[in-house]
Amino acid sequence: MQAREDLLSLDGTGIGILEHSHRGKAFLKVYEQTVALCRELGNIPDDYEVLFLQGGASSQFFMIPMSFLTPETTADYWVTGAWSEKAVEECKRFGIAHTACTGKESNYSQIPTAANYSDKPVYVHYTSNNTIFGTQFRSEPEIPADAFLVCDASSDIFSRPIDVKKHGIIYAGAQKNLGPSGVTLVIIRKDLVERAAKDLPTMLQYRTHAKNESMYNTPPTFGIYIMGQVFQWIKDQGGLAALAKHNEEKAGRLYKYLETSRLFRATASPDSRSQMNVTFVTGNEDLDKKFIAKATQAGLDGLKGHRSVGGMRASIYNAFPTAGVDRLVEVMREFEAATK
Amino acid sequence: MQAREDLLSLDGTGIGILEHSHRGKAFLKVYEQTVALCRELGNIPDDYEVLFLQGGASSQFFMIPMSFLTPETTADYWVTGAWSEKAVEECKRFGIAHTACTGKESNYSQIPTAANYSDKPVYVHYTSNNTIFGTQFRSEPEIPADAFLVCDASSDIFSRPIDVKKHGIIYAGAQKNLGPSGVTLVIIRKDLVERAAKDLPTMLQYRTHAKNESMYNTPPTFGIYIMGQVFQWIKDQGGLAALAKHNEEKAGRLYKYLETSRLFRATASPDSRSQMNVTFVTGNEDLDKKFIAKATQAGLDGLKGHRSVGGMRASIYNAFPTAGVDRLVEVMREFEAATK
Repeated sequence: MQAREDLLSLDGTGIGILEHSHRGKAFLKVYEQTVALCRELGNIPDDYEVLFLQGGASSQFFMIPMSFLTPETTADYWVTGAWSEKAVEECKRFGIAHTACTGKESNYSQIPTAANYSDKPVYVHYTSNNTIFGTQFRSEPEIPADAFLVCDASSDIFSRPIDVKKHGIIYAGAQKNLGPSGVTLVIIRKDLVERAAKDLPTMLQYRTHAKNESMYNTPPTFGIYIMGQVFQWIKDQGGLAALAKHNEEKAGRLYKYLETSRLFRATASPDSRSQMNVTFVTGNEDLDKKFIAKATQAGLDGLKGHRSVGGMRASIYNAFPTAGVDRLVEVMREFEAATK
Repeated sequence: MQAREDLLSLDGTGIGILEHSHRGKAFLKVYEQTVALCRELGNIPDDYEVLFLQGGASSQFFMIPMSFLTPETTADYWVTGAWSEKAVEECKRFGIAHTACTGKESNYSQIPTAANYSDKPVYVHYTSNNTIFGTQFRSEPEIPADAFLVCDASSDIFSRPIDVKKHGIIYAGAQKNLGPSGVTLVIIRKDLVERAAKDLPTMLQYRTHAKNESMYNTPPTFGIYIMGQVFQWIKDQGGLAALAKHNEEKAGRLYKYLETSRLFRATASPDSRSQMNVTFVTGNEDLDKKFIAKATQAGLDGLKGHRSVGGMRASIYNAFPTAGVDRLVEVMREFEAATK
């Protein structure tokens, strides 16, 4: 893989990617290629900035309300799982956090179909894919005319086309679909960069990073480099439309089996099922444990569901191969056959 | 190098360091080894936390005053260059920033020898090494009894022994001496973690990261891994005392030549000279430019001084070899001989 070569010598410079200065020509080229590929793949209009920040989605949870709310103004949240719950908590520190809808009653097994918006929300926030509960929005929610839409796309960004124009801000920790941990991709409309509060610490102002092409301070150079490699890989797959078709087909194999299984069943509602995280149970905790042990023996690691829901979760992000899903279905069939 | 192997398969797992979950056993082992080596090398007492954060030293500039000051309380700053100037600016947003001393009048060519402290500073902040001006503290400044000492050690951490007990907080962006950009090492006394303000965004509270062993959110796993490799390398060199001796000898070769050169002279005062960044000039801007071009031809890149001071700067961090300094002196001698 290219990353191994570039650790020793980036682009024929004789100096590894880790040792290059972020102000040097070699890294600047990496940065520019990464931004250009991101814009091309995501079909990102010119009036949006593409920023590489640090601190993960967890830092965007507070940076957004800190930038756009006052104690008297309101932001509306679609609460569809653990991550949106955390986002709401951080919002409360800076303004009024209004829960426009919540899937909590169904233990987040379904994306709500409608929202009860507040009078004049500054923005509406949603989490496009919910890793723990295995649910995913089919399309962007409709919002009030004066609000802007904010998407936490950490776990499904660039797994399918995204209509950037419908959003004010899209953000994503990179570690699921875009590469390494430690880089946060933020796509933000330029008028919002200008509109954001100005009395904040320099590092917490989007304008600081926009003005300095994400290089106000030393950026996470290796992370940006790897992200560029992932973008190139996505382009080689045919771009986001091709990848979406592939992901749908890949997840479809698992869901199709779950529909027919007498032992296993999917936990998410059919209209809300995620292409990235497939959650399922047998309905019997002991059997779940036995199956997880069996699958681990068969080389299928990490199937244990999140501690807050139990059961199983297959995380099948962009990079996960279809053959892996086929193997999982095979192991599930065997386990089902062996279980009376 | 080990990093190339571990990109493909970490510790025999068959899964590369970039793909391992930060909650998995393999990464946990990396994390624990990195912390243990850091504690061992730095002789860090048990009542200090070792945290791996994001956002660089630039984020510590605001996190510290945000955590410990109120609009009525004061922090004192030794202003010894561009980085301390930035730190002071961020402090002003949260409390009273008192400049205890400044080297500005001498264009920061000297570390001040005494400070004029305010009445009751909460903390005293200093920048142990100043990359742009080529100066470095010989030892920690003395401070008032009730204050705690804060050190921005971004550019000289682990280049020599550091007396952790004299400090409340030591922080460092990793990219100079510790490895890759995108990780910030924070060594903080446990009582300060508890004392810090509690009404801050979750990600901006040291206690969040202390309680969760730096894994409240996904940490920059590759950066922590590389830092661990660098710590192991430092240990293999004989630890910080051996490294300090080596660094002193290495920088000494360049300073010794500068003392005798008829063409070049060091810009920093003899009592303040940095072992990490050696700044020098010919006294003639055109000659400086010619020399930089000549050195670049000879394969010695990155010698141009920072735009705010001009001249030349040799950055000779831990990883820079003595042979590189010898080669630089050779090229300088040749240039001097060829210049009337």
